[in-house]
Amino acid sequence: MGLVVQKYGGSSVADAASVRRVAKRIVETVANGDDCVVVVSAMGDTTDELLELAEQVSPAPPARELDMLLTAGERISMAVLAMAIADLGYQARSYTGSQAGLITTASHGAAKIIDVTPGRISEAISKGAIPIVAGFQGVSQDTKDITTLGRGGSDTTAVALAAALKADKCEIYTDVDGIFSADPRIAPKARQVPITTYEEMLELAANGAKVLHLRCVEYARRSQMPLWVRSSFSDAPGTLVTTAEFIEGANVEHAIISGVTHDLSEAKITIAGIADKPGRAAAVFELLAASEVNLDMIVQNVSAAGHTDITFTIAMADGERTKVMLLEHQEELGFEELIYDEKVAKISLVGAAMRSHPGVSATTFRALADAGINVEMISTSEIRISVVTRVEEAARAVQAIHTAFGLDADGEAVVYAGTGR
Amino acid sequence: MGLVVQKYGGSSVADAASVRRVAKRIVETVANGDDCVVVVSAMGDTTDELLELAEQVSPAPPARELDMLLTAGERISMAVLAMAIADLGYQARSYTGSQAGLITTASHGAAKIIDVTPGRISEAISKGAIPIVAGFQGVSQDTKDITTLGRGGSDTTAVALAAALKADKCEIYTDVDGIFSADPRIAPKARQVPITTYEEMLELAANGAKVLHLRCVEYARRSQMPLWVRSSFSDAPGTLVTTAEFIEGANVEHAIISGVTHDLSEAKITIAGIADKPGRAAAVFELLAASEVNLDMIVQNVSAAGHTDITFTIAMADGERTKVMLLEHQEELGFEELIYDEKVAKISLVGAAMRSHPGVSATTFRALADAGINVEMISTSEIRISVVTRVEEAARAVQAIHTAFGLDADGEAVVYAGTGR
Repeated sequence: MGLVVQKYGGSSVADAASVRRVAKRIVETVANGDDCVVVVSAMGDTTDELLELAEQVSPAPPARELDMLLTAGERISMAVLAMAIADLGYQARSYTGSQAGLITTASHGAAKIIDVTPGRISEAISKGAIPIVAGFQGVSQDTKDITTLGRGGSDTTAVALAAALKADKCEIYTDVDGIFSADPRIAPKARQVPITTYEEMLELAANGAKVLHLRCVEYARRSQMPLWVRSSFSDAPGTLVTTAEFIEGANVEHAIISGVTHDLSEAKITIAGIADKPGRAAAVFELLAASEVNLDMIVQNVSAAGHTDITFTIAMADGERTKVMLLEHQEELGFEELIYDEKVAKISLVGAAMRSHPGVSATTFRALADAGINVEMISTSEIRISVVTRVEEAARAVQAIHTAFGLDADGEAVVYAGTGR
Repeated sequence: MGLVVQKYGGSSVADAASVRRVAKRIVETVANGDDCVVVVSAMGDTTDELLELAEQVSPAPPARELDMLLTAGERISMAVLAMAIADLGYQARSYTGSQAGLITTASHGAAKIIDVTPGRISEAISKGAIPIVAGFQGVSQDTKDITTLGRGGSDTTAVALAAALKADKCEIYTDVDGIFSADPRIAPKARQVPITTYEEMLELAANGAKVLHLRCVEYARRSQMPLWVRSSFSDAPGTLVTTAEFIEGANVEHAIISGVTHDLSEAKITIAGIADKPGRAAAVFELLAASEVNLDMIVQNVSAAGHTDITFTIAMADGERTKVMLLEHQEELGFEELIYDEKVAKISLVGAAMRSHPGVSATTFRALADAGINVEMISTSEIRISVVTRVEEAARAVQAIHTAFGLDADGEAVVYAGTGR
């Protein structure tokens, strides 16, 4: 008999019928002899509806009040889910983030978990009740105000609770069968990955895979919590995210490449004709850092005639203000031209086995060349290769790499839709 | 500079436009130099929608979870109202019942306020912010679970907070201009009552007046908190509910009759042919008390031939089970016949000055007799006379009494709709 934390996303509890289906799944887990703690997101479109209501009242609502408003979403879903479980003859008790001991910073809308003190949750379990915890929310240590954790918050709540309760595993239920080797919407032959490491999952999440959020994976890695990604709509086993040691010990097959991701949310900026002198590149990056613009890929071309070009990618959302800011400082930074380009895609392939397989780069670039796709930027980590291509070539690039590494499945994958929080 | 607690009902904050209108009114109060604490109900139909959702999931949801669910309603309205106030350039902070220190019993759905510890509210005021408090909800002292106060809960929250904060007054904003001398829907010549006593208001609320709930008036009476009932849709001064001493001291005109109410929610039961012996009536009433059936009016007819009839009224909601229970015990109680009648109305007239005006009963029964209305039961208190009539005669009975005591206004009253919680 173990302890499992299950998290259900908004699409899994979109309406009364879905809530009842999820309740049945939870009850089955308990009937099979495990203790179960449930974390739940807001039902379906609730969050969007609440945001719309806020907009009708104020164009720029205070962050504290926005958090108070949005947390009503999980309050509704958790109470309704508890009712559905009770209706099946099991005892369930819902808890807000604050009641469940999710202690956070006071940074409204993007609070960080400082501590988890799940005394009431443990107590509920010991009394034979199934605790249902609101995802995405907590209470600030200093001000005792209600906070929300921002994107990926509910998944992070689940992993944090699992770690604090020393659960045996954490299951993230969503509307896909697990992690895929590529986005099936653009790579129809993508296949579901049965097992992968925290490190690979971090790279996948950071480079466009949408099923799990970076924070949640990072939290699971730190606490070495086995993380399952499963569908609440099927009985498929899902994907296990775990340590490299576990995978080695289990002696399961682990592909060289875990997945190929694409990210269309970045823009590329080239600062052309900047003096190739010490400190010039630093001045550019200091300016961006001071404005909290996060750089992703950076390439500096070889200098010619004392000048050089610096190219980098940033989130498209930061694009306009970054462009304006750089142009305002053109004279001081001393560059000739700024080229701003949103029509780019970042394609990444991730695999822990890259370390020991030297041919990965060669295979990648041969596949892209054979498909006639031009590579504009390259960056690598120990377990990842990323390239920038034209946006209209993204799908072909993913498919070419996917095929080249023998990842293609026999049949076509079911198309999935990403989830928000 | 004083401190005022303002409570806005669901119809006053039904949509974004209403919320903005209420925000403006609150800001005006503050701009005029008063400190203001706001208590707010759930927006418009939110509570009904949440109840419907619960029903879709479970026919008999646990009371604890129903409270968790319903309290999402005020969470939404208070956050949105705080946003609307912030949008007008004032600082507002929303607080749940629990955060505002509303400590209650653990009786879900009908919790009683045990204590009010509004430390965070006082602190917010001292920092220049307008606290917006969720009505209708609290936290149980023993279990730390979220509770709701049941009917009239938001009004009671407002009065309880006003008392704990030693406010100068408590204003209940609703969709009518105040307390009326009768329900304008059935007595078009009803007029708004400018001032009345707690005692009269208690009798009015207990006998069918729907604007204020009994608990709220009782709380105001105990704490001697001046209570204003005003419309959030107009600038009419409203009705002041206060002590008899204040009214005497202020030397304002105080009508003999404050109001004429009607109540169509009761059923009449006659137990005919019961032995006229000591202990028989007691046996009936003990049986009802054991099942928590509350009796309202009770009449025992004069005995004839060793038998007597007992007639009483109860809430129609308790009617069916009461009837069944009494019939099950017919032999043991020893009565001949049970007559159950839902087609009755209770008409009450309330006035503190009744004590010193002996002609009130005579005027009442003369008015009813002249209108050809048969009186089936009579009961009186020091400041109230109630009669039971056929339900179809209720409107005419109210009108006849209203006219007989010179309460008719010159024009017709605006029709009002009662509010739920």
